[in-house]
Parts: sequence; C-alpha cells; structure tokens
Amino acid sequence: MKKIIGIGLGLIGGSMLLSLKRFWPEVEFLGQDTNSQHLKKAIDLGIISRQVQQEDFKNADLVIVSIPVDVAPNVIEQLLDQIGPKTLVIDTGSTKAKLCAYLKNHPKRDQFMATHPIAGTEFSGPQAAFAELFDHKTMIVCEVEKTNLKLQQRAIQCFENMQMKLRYMNPVAHNKHMAYVSHLSHISSFMLGKTVIDKEENERNIFDLAGSGFESTVRLAKSNPQTWTPIFKQNKTFVLEALSEYIHNLKNFETALKQDDFEQLYKDMNNTNIVKDILKGIHI
Amino acid sequence: MKKIIGIGLGLIGGSMLLSLKRFWPEVEFLGQDTNSQHLKKAIDLGIISRQVQQEDFKNADLVIVSIPVDVAPNVIEQLLDQIGPKTLVIDTGSTKAKLCAYLKNHPKRDQFMATHPIAGTEFSGPQAAFAELFDHKTMIVCEVEKTNLKLQQRAIQCFENMQMKLRYMNPVAHNKHMAYVSHLSHISSFMLGKTVIDKEENERNIFDLAGSGFESTVRLAKSNPQTWTPIFKQNKTFVLEALSEYIHNLKNFETALKQDDFEQLYKDMNNTNIVKDILKGIHI
Repeated sequence: MKKIIGIGLGLIGGSMLLSLKRFWPEVEFLGQDTNSQHLKKAIDLGIISRQVQQEDFKNADLVIVSIPVDVAPNVIEQLLDQIGPKTLVIDTGSTKAKLCAYLKNHPKRDQFMATHPIAGTEFSGPQAAFAELFDHKTMIVCEVEKTNLKLQQRAIQCFENMQMKLRYMNPVAHNKHMAYVSHLSHISSFMLGKTVIDKEENERNIFDLAGSGFESTVRLAKSNPQTWTPIFKQNKTFVLEALSEYIHNLKNFETALKQDDFEQLYKDMNNTNIVKDILKGIHI
Repeated sequence: MKKIIGIGLGLIGGSMLLSLKRFWPEVEFLGQDTNSQHLKKAIDLGIISRQVQQEDFKNADLVIVSIPVDVAPNVIEQLLDQIGPKTLVIDTGSTKAKLCAYLKNHPKRDQFMATHPIAGTEFSGPQAAFAELFDHKTMIVCEVEKTNLKLQQRAIQCFENMQMKLRYMNPVAHNKHMAYVSHLSHISSFMLGKTVIDKEENERNIFDLAGSGFESTVRLAKSNPQTWTPIFKQNKTFVLEALSEYIHNLKNFETALKQDDFEQLYKDMNNTNIVKDILKGIHI
C-alpha cells in the first residue's frame, strides 16, 4: 500500500490510522474531518501528514470512513464515485443494515467493505485515538461476499496484522445483536447518569460517596451524543425492542421489591450472576 | 492494639483485616464466618490465625462486623453484650438507618461505630480480599458522636492509616444517597445482564460481540445476591424512589425515540455528559 485515507479522524478513525501505521510506516496517511479542529489536531499528532485532496482518492489503496452513521451512506456513495479502480473503502460504523441497503446497487459496491470493530472508549476526538485500540478485538464484517476478492484480501491483511478476531454476519443480525450487547448498555448508562445528576444537582459533593461501582456503570454516559443519536435513530426498531425488555425487567424488579418478594429478587440476581462465566470469553 | 476480630471474612471483612495487619503486624487476628469454607480459607490465606472463641471478645480491642445487613443488627447486639469495657465494635454494612435505630438504646451503644467504607469489587469471599482495597477511599461514619471519644480515636487512627477520607453523615441521609449512587447502579446492571442473557440464551457465542462497554456496564451484575438482597430490603423506600425515577427516565427516552424526537435524545445525553467532570472528583 502507498496511500491510506481517513475520513473522520476521531477516536475510531484516528486509531485505525495509527494502528495501520505500525505495519505500513512508509505509507502516506491523509485525512479529512468536518471538524476543522480535529483535522488540525490529527496533523499535529502525526495521525495524518496533511488534509486529503480530491485527486488523492484516485490512487488511494484504502479509505477508512469513521463518521456518524447518519451521514455515512451519502458520504460513502460519493466516495465510491471518486475512487480509482484499485481503491478499497471500508466503514467502521456501529450500525450496518441501512448502509448496506443503501449501497446495495452501487456499481462499485464490490470496492466497499462494511465493518464494525468492537472496540472503543468513552472518549472522543483525535486526541483520544491510540494505535492499540483494536488489537485482539473482534471485527465484524457484513456481506463479505459482496467485496471483490482482491480487496477482501487487503482488508483481511490489515485486520490480521492487528490480530483482530474476524466474525462474519449479515447486517440485520448485526444490528439486532448490537442493540442488546452495546446500544442498550449506552441507554442504561446515560439514563442512570441522568437520574443521579437530577437528584443530586444541588449536592455535587455527594458524588464523593460514589464508588467504583457507580463509575463503572455510568462510564458510557461520557460517550459522544453526536455519535450516539444517529446510532439510536438508525437502529430504532431493535433498540426499542431491547429497551422495552429492559424496562419490563426493571418494572418486575420494582414490583417484587414493593411486594417484599425477596426470593424473586434473589433468584433474578443469582441467575444473572452467570455473566461472570460469559464475560470470561470477552477479551477486553 | 493486641487483638482484632473479624466477624464475616468475605471481601470486605477479609480486606479490613489484611489492611490493618499492615500497620499492626504483631496483633492477633481472629475471626468467624457462618460459611465454614470461608473460615477455613481465611485461615489458609493468613487473614486470621484461628477461629475466634467466646472468651476472646472480652479483651478484644476491635471487632469488625462485615456480614449481610439483615443479620447485622442482632449479631451486633449480641456482640455488645459479650465484649469487654475497652472493646470497639464497628460494622461496615451498606445500609445504616435500621442498624442505628435498632442499637439506639443499647447500654453499650458508645462502644459501637457505624461505618460504611465506599469500596468493593464485584467478587466475594476471603479469596477476593486484599490489603489495599480501602486505601484512599471514602469512609462514611454515621452518628459519630454516639461513640465514646477514646474509641472514636482508635477507629479514626485505623482509617487514617489507610489514608481514607472521612465523611460524617446521619444514617437516613446516608441511605438515601446510597440508593442513588450505589444501589440503583446494581439494579441497573443486574437487569441489563438479565435482559441480554434472556435474549441471547441460545446464542452464547454472541457475547463475543460485546465490547468493553457492555463489560463495564454489566460488571456489578456479578455481585453476590446474598449481600444485595438484604440491602434492597433494608433500603426499600429509597431504592424504590430511585428506581422509579430511573424507569421514568428510560420511558421518556423510549417515547422520544418512538416519536423520532432526536433533539430530545441528544439534549438528554449531552446534559448527562457532565458526569465526565463529576467523576474526575471520584478517586477509584
């Protein structure tokens, strides 16, 4: 590879570029971000050497799109129109169904790969990016068979260098599972943060009393709403399904507590303790 | 001090003893646990040298009670009846109001101190205990003025050795704040775990797709239900208040999402982002 371009230079996009730079240090890394401060910061931090120009797309080997999921379909459509015949475009967004449906009939669909790296932190922007973010993490690839073989190979070489675990799924199944194992966690955490802040707003020092349990549970409430609002929008159906089941379980807990049914509470918590074993399988 | 006794040798009790042993290595550490395996393990691990006997209480300097909050009032009442005139009893439970009310008129109330160290992990048992658990953490002390001055001094010397930050509160205020900053986090996490497990029960490998966000949010669902059922029972009123506000916020989020009111979602998440600043003040 000779030229890699990042569209969107935040936590995910910036980390992808830094990660690849370890294996292709001679490659030219260029980029773009609608936030001019992020663009400048990415250059200052050495994530990219300069802003990408129109003509760069023609001979780019790889374009990585890491932007909010609501704008991704249009941006990628336009990118596909601009790239040369040997360029691969991948996107890293947290929803995949609408994007794949939108690009379905694009004449250059085979130069695109829909991916979702399961990694992140609650921080955002190029200053939060780091080269090791994706090492040993899971990479979900959707509709892999729609990408041409040579470009598949190029993408997989990148992910294997990072020692990522590849998982192939269809975009709808991806979205459904993500609603449960990722999107719902964010809502749960944001609303927990809201509940406590609303209550304690006049007593900020009370957060002193919070321990690492609160810190851990509310960590995702630091996430960027600009990223998350479009994710909830795009995955509305599955997120509503997961959220409704979550509220249902909380209401059952509430009812059991109201009725002094402590056996039920115990049983529910005890059954849920199996997350101990399940989480052992997650590499974080 | 010459003799320190731990009643309850799990994560909290075991860690208290290990912590104190660093500063009083010559002291005799004894203990008791209703779980005979925990008792044996605590001896094997060197947390205590042997099981405590009836006569040990007479000349003990310090008895630390770390047992489920539903049994604590009776156990402490009986302990106070057995101790010598120079013994201090402290308890470390997560609720304080019922315990303080129960012991209010005990003739030896001044030999007791009600405390709550704000520290823990999702693991339990003596094997989870470690000496540094409480270092630099917050220690809440309730009704401090009811403990006699000499014994206050002894307790505070212990906590200061651990470099804990002391906070004095009344037991009811303690319980109310804990419902928000601790107990609600546990419910939120347990029910999140339940929701995801129920959904994905036939597809365990799907947890592969979960990232560190899910891991963090669901961490408290590994907590011991034997500890937590009595906490919810004892703090029922405040926990129900906090839980009802949490469910209300989740339902508002659900409604906004159903109605495509993404501005509202954005606003709520953005306002909650201030946890970033608030959590900076928490030492974890």
